[in-house]
Amino acid sequence: MSVTSVPGFVAAGTTCGLKPSGAPDLALVATADGAPVTAAGVFTSNKMTAAPVLACRAHLAATGGRAAAVVLNSGNANAATGVQGLADAGAMAAATAAELGCAPDEVLVCSTGWIGYPLPMDLLLAGIPEAVAALAADGGAAAAEAIMTTDTVAKTTVVSGEGFTVGGIAKGAAMLEPNMATMLAVLTTDAEVDPATATDLLRAAVGTSFNCLTVDGAESTNDTVLLLASGTAGPVDADALGTALADACASLAVQMADDAEGSTKTVFLAVTGAASDAEAAKGARDTANCQLVKCSWYGEDPYWGRIAAEMGAAGIAFDPDTITISYGGQAVYAGGEAQPVDEAALRAHMAGRTLDLDVDLGQGDGTARIVTTDLSHAYVDENMQTS
Amino acid sequence: MSVTSVPGFVAAGTTCGLKPSGAPDLALVATADGAPVTAAGVFTSNKMTAAPVLACRAHLAATGGRAAAVVLNSGNANAATGVQGLADAGAMAAATAAELGCAPDEVLVCSTGWIGYPLPMDLLLAGIPEAVAALAADGGAAAAEAIMTTDTVAKTTVVSGEGFTVGGIAKGAAMLEPNMATMLAVLTTDAEVDPATATDLLRAAVGTSFNCLTVDGAESTNDTVLLLASGTAGPVDADALGTALADACASLAVQMADDAEGSTKTVFLAVTGAASDAEAAKGARDTANCQLVKCSWYGEDPYWGRIAAEMGAAGIAFDPDTITISYGGQAVYAGGEAQPVDEAALRAHMAGRTLDLDVDLGQGDGTARIVTTDLSHAYVDENMQTS
Repeated sequence: MSVTSVPGFVAAGTTCGLKPSGAPDLALVATADGAPVTAAGVFTSNKMTAAPVLACRAHLAATGGRAAAVVLNSGNANAATGVQGLADAGAMAAATAAELGCAPDEVLVCSTGWIGYPLPMDLLLAGIPEAVAALAADGGAAAAEAIMTTDTVAKTTVVSGEGFTVGGIAKGAAMLEPNMATMLAVLTTDAEVDPATATDLLRAAVGTSFNCLTVDGAESTNDTVLLLASGTAGPVDADALGTALADACASLAVQMADDAEGSTKTVFLAVTGAASDAEAAKGARDTANCQLVKCSWYGEDPYWGRIAAEMGAAGIAFDPDTITISYGGQAVYAGGEAQPVDEAALRAHMAGRTLDLDVDLGQGDGTARIVTTDLSHAYVDENMQTS
Repeated sequence: MSVTSVPGFVAAGTTCGLKPSGAPDLALVATADGAPVTAAGVFTSNKMTAAPVLACRAHLAATGGRAAAVVLNSGNANAATGVQGLADAGAMAAATAAELGCAPDEVLVCSTGWIGYPLPMDLLLAGIPEAVAALAADGGAAAAEAIMTTDTVAKTTVVSGEGFTVGGIAKGAAMLEPNMATMLAVLTTDAEVDPATATDLLRAAVGTSFNCLTVDGAESTNDTVLLLASGTAGPVDADALGTALADACASLAVQMADDAEGSTKTVFLAVTGAASDAEAAKGARDTANCQLVKCSWYGEDPYWGRIAAEMGAAGIAFDPDTITISYGGQAVYAGGEAQPVDEAALRAHMAGRTLDLDVDLGQGDGTARIVTTDLSHAYVDENMQTS
């Protein structure tokens, strides 16, 4: 049920001592024979780019989209670490490559954890040979566990296509808008695909999954989604591969929302009837990131006033008389007025782990879907101090 | 120390029964003789505009910028109340005008409280004559108290100019980006000023005060700042009046931050060295509204990583190597690296009620200043349920 559900890939999760807790903190995903295969990546657009992201981009450019392994550490993001950080990311790749017998550029690097502290390279360099030695055909779950930070459960997925498989592991909260606990994902497949197509398909899959997930509107310095495609299953239909990648990413994204810091609700927010898809997305994102709305979800309160006000403030085509706001399929506000509802059914919906919130703006055909979470006491607890 | 510190104005705060708590909920500010004077208003840009805002705009347009009184209620925002809401706002003005002996258009109307419930007009219409009867030359403090919602203290101010005075009362959290507890302010002055100039000066004053305050990035349906200028002090220098209005608004804005829902810190955030003032403002606002940064203030943690990441994600000119982040005048991050600090002094600063956060982007001459607050358990408590 992970990256090693795909034939030809091995993985490992070990402990090198980066976390005070002593929990696993070093992960590897690699081809079983150490040979490079097609590789693609999608990265944060944050200009405060972390060293491992810069290293991944450089390595993919140097190889033309080939890689034999991904080495990942948790406990330290290697971000805002200057020139030393770049050297350290390179050294992680080189040490892994030396053990696997591939070129340093054929190893991709991910880091997640606190920003601004130099990587303890003595621990990492001692740990990498151990991780390589632990690589196993059933090592995906251990790898998923070793990249966790504030995650409480490991995130894994597997999607079966026609004649091929996509597997994945992930950690964190979101893509373009994740919380400080960077979002990382590694996907594997045995489908045959060239690097350019792989990048296009991966970007599209990220666009409909991780990029439609927001926990708190904050974008990390390290966000990375990587794909290794071995090609051993032979050529496949590109659309079918794209669908499988999107399904795998969507599964991982919902797992992230379910496990987001302090989250007690996963909210599926659909905006329809906007003047355009872009306006729908703007309204959906502003509403999903509104602290007041998030608090009302935590309180299981189907209060529509703040949702209407947020759409009214989003700078999109809007008319208070044409907006319809529904929770769990029941309209609570329509035609400019609060609506009578089945109170018991509404209360039961709001009390669930999953909320369905539909907002129809009555302006046009624009739609957007977003997955988000509530804002709880526990979120404040997790983020009020860095140590 | 309020609207009635200005000669020629009277005010009252009474109870008509809109709040279950039985606290005062009806306020009036009026000219002592009931005659109209110069009036100006600045209003929310939210398209989910509340009825009293529409009424104020219509009345100011009809009179060409003249008013004799402002009637304000708390406990109900008269927002998202459709056609009935407009009729109710008009009836509030008409009832007040009948008692004062002025025209209905010469009364401005403000409401604040929950969105989406019809105004209990029987209570309001019974209360208005009582409020008019209570109008007094020392009634400003009572008026300030009667407009409170989640406020814990009344907000008042007085600024002395050369030969004139500006007084004010306010409630709520912010202007363009207030929390659900709508921001309302009424200012009075005896300076002589025409309606067009008054509007320009008021808009400028709001721009450097309430519009530079953000609690949670949410914009209310009802936000209103009104000015009544009697002219009894005669003509004044327009710049001097503008300065006094700005000072009065700034005082009220800081009082709002100090009393914002659940706030334990008032944060003065200055962004300098941006490529433009607009880019400075974008970076400042994004950082001020970032849940993760707000939580770190609550935890008294001078963590700069998330601040740098927020600036990096703001879509503005940015270089990780040129940004300098300082708390209480001490640089904690500069030149791409964490800086050594006087730990005791830094800890003492973070433990105070007021934080000074300076971010220099090293890109140009653009600057912005914003006042904001932290995100606490109490904020979540106050907003998780509407009742």
